[in-house]
Amino acid sequence: MGNEPAHTITRYDQELESLRGIVARMGGLVERQTAQAVAAVVDQNEDAAREPPMLDPEVDTLEREAEQLAIRILALRAPMAVDLRQIVAVLKMSGDLERIGDYASSIARRALKVEPLDGALSFSALRAMGRLVQENLHRAVEAMVENDAERAKEVWNADTAVDELYTTMFRELVTYMMEDPRNIGPCIHLLFVAKNLERIGDHATNIAERVYYAVTGEMLPSERPRGGEAAKKPASQGE
Amino acid sequence: MGNEPAHTITRYDQELESLRGIVARMGGLVERQTAQAVAAVVDQNEDAAREPPMLDPEVDTLEREAEQLAIRILALRAPMAVDLRQIVAVLKMSGDLERIGDYASSIARRALKVEPLDGALSFSALRAMGRLVQENLHRAVEAMVENDAERAKEVWNADTAVDELYTTMFRELVTYMMEDPRNIGPCIHLLFVAKNLERIGDHATNIAERVYYAVTGEMLPSERPRGGEAAKKPASQGE
Repeated sequence: MGNEPAHTITRYDQELESLRGIVARMGGLVERQTAQAVAAVVDQNEDAAREPPMLDPEVDTLEREAEQLAIRILALRAPMAVDLRQIVAVLKMSGDLERIGDYASSIARRALKVEPLDGALSFSALRAMGRLVQENLHRAVEAMVENDAERAKEVWNADTAVDELYTTMFRELVTYMMEDPRNIGPCIHLLFVAKNLERIGDHATNIAERVYYAVTGEMLPSERPRGGEAAKKPASQGE
Repeated sequence: MGNEPAHTITRYDQELESLRGIVARMGGLVERQTAQAVAAVVDQNEDAAREPPMLDPEVDTLEREAEQLAIRILALRAPMAVDLRQIVAVLKMSGDLERIGDYASSIARRALKVEPLDGALSFSALRAMGRLVQENLHRAVEAMVENDAERAKEVWNADTAVDELYTTMFRELVTYMMEDPRNIGPCIHLLFVAKNLERIGDHATNIAERVYYAVTGEMLPSERPRGGEAAKKPASQGE
């Protein structure tokens, strides 16, 4: 029994590591889902469109595993202070990651319904928006996996450009709809695609905020330097 | 010190009760936000439109309070089994409630931008959808506050009707847009209103699932009897 404390600490560290591993895998999966969803739309790629919804069940399973392992650690190890804050952050971030996966799947399902617009629309605003959101998501996941508060703060500062591209895209789409009523159906799908991408960006920002709080114990200000639903700014005409 | 255990238990029960009280208040607030947001659209009521965004900061503050109290309880009391599962559920549900508040605010901000359609559109599908979603949300909050697994299961079963109304509304709106390009702007706002209402319904269902798990220790099946983003069904043309 003399070895018990050291043994306990080792097991505990392993469990924390394993919890971290689960959300790291979730992060990798939802990054993949987002990348494929964007490719599905802007390249009209059927194979890419099929992947995100297929990955959803795996993401859901990981979310449940994270929750069960977190409960197990809380029950058996009664962690304190920083560890406790990080376990709670992991629980909340796994929820954000699950939502990101859902939004990516929703984008993928609409991807091929915009085909009638092919050629007429350059997808350039959407392409740029997709790139930015993917970058932010990637940095948020890295910050999460590496417990990096500085990187988290970068993500938190980087989201305004996404909103500007969203507004550009919105105007472009309304113009297409006005020009020809046959564009209305496909353009509505693209509007929802853009909205879902914007929400993925919001959840990446949420993750960044949680990493920052878990690591530093300080909250970032509740007014975020960006738009989107979660930012509580009044909806512009471009929304 | 002989009284310490009884004293500790009492304090602990009070803290759990107080955590429950915070999410109950959150539930009441987001119900109010949702009701006012729907009224703002279907009755074109300006006063109602102002309220949901004004309540957002209060909801956010309560979410943070819930998280901090949960961490405190976990740190000081090291709760076991059912209590632990319920504290984790509260953490997750406070996230759902916060999202519901966001969606309600987003609806409220769009409410008066559909005014040009007034008279042309009966809002009857939206009115019915709003009523159903509010009922589901109310039952989900009740199930949460009263720890009622049976009621939670009712909510979980009740969401399909919302999707049917959404599809009806979607078709109606596309028809208006095709008839007159001047309807396109306001109709897009209404499409997002309907989508946001549907998402509020999804989060009410999430809450019901979490209550069920927290109380029974069993998960409801991952395939839910309903549509919407979170249900992972293929997007219909009506989406």
